[in-house]
Amino acid sequence: MDSYDELEVLFEEVAHLDHVSAMLLWDEAVMMPEGSGDARTSALSYLARLRNETLRAPDLGQALRQVNTDTLSDWQAANVLEMRRRHRSARAVDPLLVERRSRASMSCEQAWRKLRPENNWTELQPLLEEVVALVREEAVQRGAASGMAPYDALLDLYDPGQTEDAVRGIFDTLKGALPPILEAAIRKQPPAPLKRAGGPFPVESQCALGLEVVRNLGFDFNRGRLDVSHHPFCGGVPEDVRMTTRYGADDFVQSLMDVIHETGHALYEQNLPRRWSRQPVGRPRGMAMHESQSLFFEMQVARTEAFLRWLKPTAETFFPTLRGMSFEAFESLFLRVKRDYIRIDADEITYPFHVMLRFELEGPLVRGEIQVRDLPKLWNEKMVAYLGLSTLGNDKDGCMQDVHWPGGGFGYFPSYTMGAIAAAQLFAAAKEQIPGLLRQLEQGDLSSLRQWLDRSIWSRASAESFEEIVRGATGRALDAHAFIDHLQARYLS
Amino acid sequence: MDSYDELEVLFEEVAHLDHVSAMLLWDEAVMMPEGSGDARTSALSYLARLRNETLRAPDLGQALRQVNTDTLSDWQAANVLEMRRRHRSARAVDPLLVERRSRASMSCEQAWRKLRPENNWTELQPLLEEVVALVREEAVQRGAASGMAPYDALLDLYDPGQTEDAVRGIFDTLKGALPPILEAAIRKQPPAPLKRAGGPFPVESQCALGLEVVRNLGFDFNRGRLDVSHHPFCGGVPEDVRMTTRYGADDFVQSLMDVIHETGHALYEQNLPRRWSRQPVGRPRGMAMHESQSLFFEMQVARTEAFLRWLKPTAETFFPTLRGMSFEAFESLFLRVKRDYIRIDADEITYPFHVMLRFELEGPLVRGEIQVRDLPKLWNEKMVAYLGLSTLGNDKDGCMQDVHWPGGGFGYFPSYTMGAIAAAQLFAAAKEQIPGLLRQLEQGDLSSLRQWLDRSIWSRASAESFEEIVRGATGRALDAHAFIDHLQARYLS
Repeated sequence: MDSYDELEVLFEEVAHLDHVSAMLLWDEAVMMPEGSGDARTSALSYLARLRNETLRAPDLGQALRQVNTDTLSDWQAANVLEMRRRHRSARAVDPLLVERRSRASMSCEQAWRKLRPENNWTELQPLLEEVVALVREEAVQRGAASGMAPYDALLDLYDPGQTEDAVRGIFDTLKGALPPILEAAIRKQPPAPLKRAGGPFPVESQCALGLEVVRNLGFDFNRGRLDVSHHPFCGGVPEDVRMTTRYGADDFVQSLMDVIHETGHALYEQNLPRRWSRQPVGRPRGMAMHESQSLFFEMQVARTEAFLRWLKPTAETFFPTLRGMSFEAFESLFLRVKRDYIRIDADEITYPFHVMLRFELEGPLVRGEIQVRDLPKLWNEKMVAYLGLSTLGNDKDGCMQDVHWPGGGFGYFPSYTMGAIAAAQLFAAAKEQIPGLLRQLEQGDLSSLRQWLDRSIWSRASAESFEEIVRGATGRALDAHAFIDHLQARYLS
Repeated sequence: MDSYDELEVLFEEVAHLDHVSAMLLWDEAVMMPEGSGDARTSALSYLARLRNETLRAPDLGQALRQVNTDTLSDWQAANVLEMRRRHRSARAVDPLLVERRSRASMSCEQAWRKLRPENNWTELQPLLEEVVALVREEAVQRGAASGMAPYDALLDLYDPGQTEDAVRGIFDTLKGALPPILEAAIRKQPPAPLKRAGGPFPVESQCALGLEVVRNLGFDFNRGRLDVSHHPFCGGVPEDVRMTTRYGADDFVQSLMDVIHETGHALYEQNLPRRWSRQPVGRPRGMAMHESQSLFFEMQVARTEAFLRWLKPTAETFFPTLRGMSFEAFESLFLRVKRDYIRIDADEITYPFHVMLRFELEGPLVRGEIQVRDLPKLWNEKMVAYLGLSTLGNDKDGCMQDVHWPGGGFGYFPSYTMGAIAAAQLFAAAKEQIPGLLRQLEQGDLSSLRQWLDRSIWSRASAESFEEIVRGATGRALDAHAFIDHLQARYLS
């Protein structure tokens, strides 16, 4: 066995561990009975350590040093680069810390599921403090090994090369541009929402509509599932993508948009190049790219007039009462803008403020400049400043609302807004490059669009950087103005 | 860390791997989409190898040699014995063979799920031949390492110490005793079954009744679930027991009895001593003991007149049409005896013939005295001889009916009948030792019975041998006559 082939074999074993962890995390959120949390936490934390130990192994390092990339194909060489990145990342942190951090975050996340509905910050705080202490330790170890600042070392885990400074630059642009757009959009829309027009919406019919839409978008149910969980997510592995959503009987829009969002993630995973599905180069190119795909479908495609003109008659077959509604009223259900508390329910104009708020707390928290106990107060201050809403005494809709921090996911949030920007830029390019795209969407025909995404994004996997892929697809570097232009065109024209 | 503590840590890691495999096997049978089979097979087969490599590791062997059992408690010492058994068992077989066998059996089992309903033996045969070839290789390796005959080495995997000769001895006793009992029981019962008296039985009501009964038997839903799968089984881990069943709308008895059977398995798992749940000594004492617990509930408890007198009014609340049925007619639904094709649907008198048939084919198959291609013909001959039924051209109800062989489980079947015998002997002892037991069952009160099982079986885990536990609970060695006496008392008196 020459050393490149040997490396593929070793990384295929890591992919098996990833398969196992992904499936058990899905099971934990969707199936696992509450009393089983401790056993699951121990098993998954052990796997996290095992994965770290596999990736940091000296013989792996030696093979990575010995391999001669001159004789390799482009993809093989790109694969070696990704392998080296994973090896370095694993060596940067103590395997026992990996296990401890995994255990603390999984316990905290399990507790969070109970404590959030109870608005019980008091009991969550010490658990979150333990998570933050271990995350700080990890950030320091990763920073020391890589020469990055500690919080940058966390950002880099989700989006290779991302930095706090770069994110701040983009957020500064948005902070200047968004407030007047938000103000004008709210002034422009009708004062009362039309949401309840056709309700109630039985959960069975919502499921059936969701399945119909998901199928139409191109999800392959032979290699994936759609189930119900407390919070929507997309997990699993490319060969077995597990999406979840939740249903509320008084509104079908939120759940449908959640399903479309997760389908965007799922299409990315399901259409990654199969030859490379168990190799590092075959994985998605970071979480900003991943969110760009979910938001591409949820925010860009699914809220166009064209798509909604296909969706309305489709939805009417499941909710006959919608037949009495004008198209304009139907469309307005999907374009409602509102300053509100909950990030995952937010419209696309207010969403970046939710992300900025978290970003501006995360960095200082990781650096120890602020403490977990300060979060309720600081959260409230920023919500008042950005959206004019107080969360004092309402932590369940404030600093307890997200799973990310209890789950140890510090450094993830910026990916949502980078993804939103990329999605806007990609859709603008798709409309330019695909003749008759909007007419096709109006007929529910997404085949050209999927081909374009496949060629531009999905089939690229991790063979190029995020920046290269965006530039390759759109001809330009990532630019917040594409997103700003999109919001102006949709909400103010 | 002294070496005993170190051993507990190492075996806790093995328990984590077992947790992961158990959950993913459940997922495969209950949740996994068909197209994901290959990725799952690869991941689980890699885990099987990893488990083997962990258990066979030289430093583990050294720690097992060094540990001084004189200073240990009884349970710690028993734990070391079980650890050594697992270490020896892992060293007996090549880890790459473990992975290959796992892969071949999982692929064959996945194919079997499709091919059995199609009665497609032609396509199953080559896959099963590959499994059998690898099982033979494993049996030879295990035999060579242990000094056992190859098939004995497989029996030993499920029931430590079990041998082909011992099984044959017990089966010879049954072969003499059962035919006249079967003949007389069939003659004695009314000619037509009363099964359809109250049907159809909506699946939702069967689910609800099943949950009610399972809860009453003592299953802890905080640490387990009940779902639907093609074949009923009980999987998972003690902290998260996953039972499954299936429902047919024209009969509630089969499904309810399946659920009660799996609940017997589940109660054993859930009530193993928690202190030892991730150590070898804390695991169930072999599969005959496991089946004795499922059959204790399914065959012994649930078909007593006493339990059925509690069950009838309970069932009536879900199926009101049962109210018109006499108790005798209701009872007869549960005591119907019939020569039939399918093992898992068989009554307790014909069941051992199904097992003997498989046992008498398995040994020769493992030794290479017969071949996979001979199975349809040999199966038919034995079914004609034992139950007077031909399976020629009907392989789906013949040699394709069980998951065991496609899944690589050679050597398991005898455990069912050993379990049935132990169950009869245990229930006879329970009736002697628990004052007023039948009166309690009639009131749906199983608390004394559970306490007795907990003391006699569940809390013993693997601290003693199967024989010691049976003798401790019943005062006697395992004896086929307890089973024969039970059948005579129930069906002929």
